[in-house]
Amino acid sequence: EAIALMKELHPADIAEIYDELNIEEAKFLYLLLDGDTAADVLAELEDDDRDRFLKILPLEVIAKKFIDRMDSDDAADVIGSLSEEQREGILSHIDDIEQAGDIVDLLHYDEDTAGGLMAKEMVIVNENWTVLTCLRELSRQAEDIDEIYYVYVVDDDGVLKGTLSLKKMILSSTSAKISNIYQPDAMSVRTEESDEVVARIMEKYDLIAIPVVDSIGRLMGRITIDDVVDVIRDEAEKDYQLASGISEDVESNDSIWLQTRARLPWLLIGLMGGICSALVISVHENDLGINPAMAFFIPLITAMGGNVGVQSSAIIVQGIANKSLGMESTFSRLMRELMGAFVNGITCSSIVFLYNSLFSDSYALTISVSAALFSVIIFASIFGTLIPLSLHKIKIDPALATGPFVTTLNDIVGLLIYLSIGAYFYGL
Amino acid sequence: EAIALMKELHPADIAEIYDELNIEEAKFLYLLLDGDTAADVLAELEDDDRDRFLKILPLEVIAKKFIDRMDSDDAADVIGSLSEEQREGILSHIDDIEQAGDIVDLLHYDEDTAGGLMAKEMVIVNENWTVLTCLRELSRQAEDIDEIYYVYVVDDDGVLKGTLSLKKMILSSTSAKISNIYQPDAMSVRTEESDEVVARIMEKYDLIAIPVVDSIGRLMGRITIDDVVDVIRDEAEKDYQLASGISEDVESNDSIWLQTRARLPWLLIGLMGGICSALVISVHENDLGINPAMAFFIPLITAMGGNVGVQSSAIIVQGIANKSLGMESTFSRLMRELMGAFVNGITCSSIVFLYNSLFSDSYALTISVSAALFSVIIFASIFGTLIPLSLHKIKIDPALATGPFVTTLNDIVGLLIYLSIGAYFYGL
Ligand SMILES: [Mg+2]
Ligand SMILES: [Mg+2]
Ligand SMILES: [Mg+2]
Ligand SMILES: [Mg+2]
Ligand SMILES: [Mg+2]
Ligand SMILES: [Mg+2]
Ligand SMILES: [Mg+2]
Ligand SMILES: [Mg+2]
Ligand SMILES: [Mg+2]
Ligand SMILES: [Mg+2]
Ligand SMILES: [Mg+2]
Ligand SMILES: [Mg+2]
Ligand SMILES: [Mg+2]
Repeated sequence: EAIALMKELHPADIAEIYDELNIEEAKFLYLLLDGDTAADVLAELEDDDRDRFLKILPLEVIAKKFIDRMDSDDAADVIGSLSEEQREGILSHIDDIEQAGDIVDLLHYDEDTAGGLMAKEMVIVNENWTVLTCLRELSRQAEDIDEIYYVYVVDDDGVLKGTLSLKKMILSSTSAKISNIYQPDAMSVRTEESDEVVARIMEKYDLIAIPVVDSIGRLMGRITIDDVVDVIRDEAEKDYQLASGISEDVESNDSIWLQTRARLPWLLIGLMGGICSALVISVHENDLGINPAMAFFIPLITAMGGNVGVQSSAIIVQGIANKSLGMESTFSRLMRELMGAFVNGITCSSIVFLYNSLFSDSYALTISVSAALFSVIIFASIFGTLIPLSLHKIKIDPALATGPFVTTLNDIVGLLIYLSIGAYFYGL
Repeated sequence: EAIALMKELHPADIAEIYDELNIEEAKFLYLLLDGDTAADVLAELEDDDRDRFLKILPLEVIAKKFIDRMDSDDAADVIGSLSEEQREGILSHIDDIEQAGDIVDLLHYDEDTAGGLMAKEMVIVNENWTVLTCLRELSRQAEDIDEIYYVYVVDDDGVLKGTLSLKKMILSSTSAKISNIYQPDAMSVRTEESDEVVARIMEKYDLIAIPVVDSIGRLMGRITIDDVVDVIRDEAEKDYQLASGISEDVESNDSIWLQTRARLPWLLIGLMGGICSALVISVHENDLGINPAMAFFIPLITAMGGNVGVQSSAIIVQGIANKSLGMESTFSRLMRELMGAFVNGITCSSIVFLYNSLFSDSYALTISVSAALFSVIIFASIFGTLIPLSLHKIKIDPALATGPFVTTLNDIVGLLIYLSIGAYFYGL
């Protein structure tokens, strides 16, 4: 029964079921899958589930049952996550020498580059061939390849010349020469290009596959959109988590230990910030003893500084990611943020001024809170703009800036401003 | 010169240049583009730029120069953003009656459903045809379609039966009957399915196109991966902005007015929260006058509550989006978050306890701060878990919960806890 059911399911669905099983159940069910399905399921498993699973299998089984049947990009990813000895062991057990060679080639590239994303499976034709030779070659090569999006045209040295769509091939006469019908100037990327740039290019030009070339233009592989969609999703989740003070890729069903490791460092930064804030306030202990009402608006000042800072940095972080910041200078961007902060600052501090005028009998408090709130909003927008831009300049992920980092800094600066202004006005 | 240069560029690149031009320059450059390029550029423009541009053109020009040459999905999007009269005017000027009909059909669907994403351009073949008829039909239909990913197979009633890949068609004999070679059980979505679900399906099964059917299974259109990539990107940016307290889709180069409209409402919520916090603290005015040191740790308590709340809700929001929360009950999820909060709470309050034991001479303060910090971390993780789950249940976007909303609530509750505990211990 289980076999019949599993046969009906897509490998991606089976992989989801595996996520819920313990290792014994997983092993049992795995033996029921036929070879190709088993390999597809393995490629779809989450990294941690896969590592757990591979640990209990002999290297020869991994090689023959999985790696040999996987696409070269997925195979390289699986092998790349294993130890040096395991790699050697598995590679020596692969029967298909071409597949083993492809994997060894792919292992050279960094995970987050075009080389790390590309696969070796593609249909390559020579520019001097005719459509007929092409169609023959296609049926020969096509066995190994699930989907053919484009046929890549190369010269005798393997340098990428352009692409030929299947549609064009179907609609051309079989005696036509490839060099007369292919599309030259194909968009391509270099092996060392970052995966995020590859994603932006495929997104912008609506590509479903892009060829990857080396430094002298030779065709090395192709990247397909399904893998790029995963890059986009991962990147978005990472940024969202960073902005929320979670530093590793965790999911709600990950272990407490993983969750803590991802979150506690940020909380400790917040804790240090809180202790600094305590020190700042303690300087004004005497003033507070005389005018405890000063303490009422501490949370308002810190909260507003945090909110404004996060808003500004979020806009900058997205602008950097979208490359839409290219044309504008740091100065004009800062001016723009400042103008916005001015409008928001005037509005918010007027409201608080009105509130305190009505409900507080301390003129000093009314003035201090509004003046401090306005200054804090201005300063927070400056920090919120400059910190991500600076991080980006020194090649640190600017998304860090929207997290607890900016909030903590704003708390401290906000308190310094508020208490200094307050001390001044109460001193009058 | 400008013309020669423009001819070299991809429409997506030209659209980026337009983003930087004023309306007069844009109009001038537009007249230099040939018809098809002009239509492509229009489809690539950002919404606000496009609306600005369309306002200055006569309806007949819009119809003949742009709408008639665009893909049906893009054409429907452009027309859908115009007023009722403009729509009628443009539709009446379209020469290609089939195109006009397709657009009218597409206008029925909500923007954020499968129907709103799909296009009418696709190659449809009857299951009773042979490969030869198919190839002929293909050359006839293919003119209008840039890329053919799949050929869709329907029965005589137009009900979707399955798909046929171009690869399969090329590799089969021309006399083969379609019904013998097509792939049945094609993955498809209903017109009313939400765009985010469509994205998740295409992502999970690595599809580059998916057919859309109506309630009785008739083929209505197809969705291509490039448009789904845009959905994924937009969704991620929206969530990131929501989490940062920005409620509309704005970019760093949008006007101050737009920026303010997107940000000020959140700041006002924060402001109200700050005033509530002030009220909570003012209850303890006398205690604070006697023990001003109580005020030192107000920012620490509010900041930590905010950080923990945002962490918990971010994990839940992503879990909801990934549908990975399906199998686990709310209760067990809450327990898991609570255990994590317990670990983080014990760690953080021990550190603060140590700090205060060393540097503060008030035993009451030392106890109060640590006890309050622990409680606040527990409460914040409960709110952070339950608020997004509740919002989701009442069909409000849970991403709202990670923004200033949760932070503000945590500030108030945190202060209530801290000051009550403090008053109790100082009262001893
Ligand atoms: Mg593949
Ligand atoms: Mg790889
Ligand atoms: Mg695109
Ligand atoms: Mg597009
Ligand atoms: Mg792949
Ligand atoms: Mg990033
Ligand atoms: Mg996992
Ligand atoms: Mg639409
Ligand atoms: Mg996928
Ligand atoms: Mg995949
Ligand atoms: Mg489209
Ligand atoms: Mg969402
Ligand atoms: Mg814009």
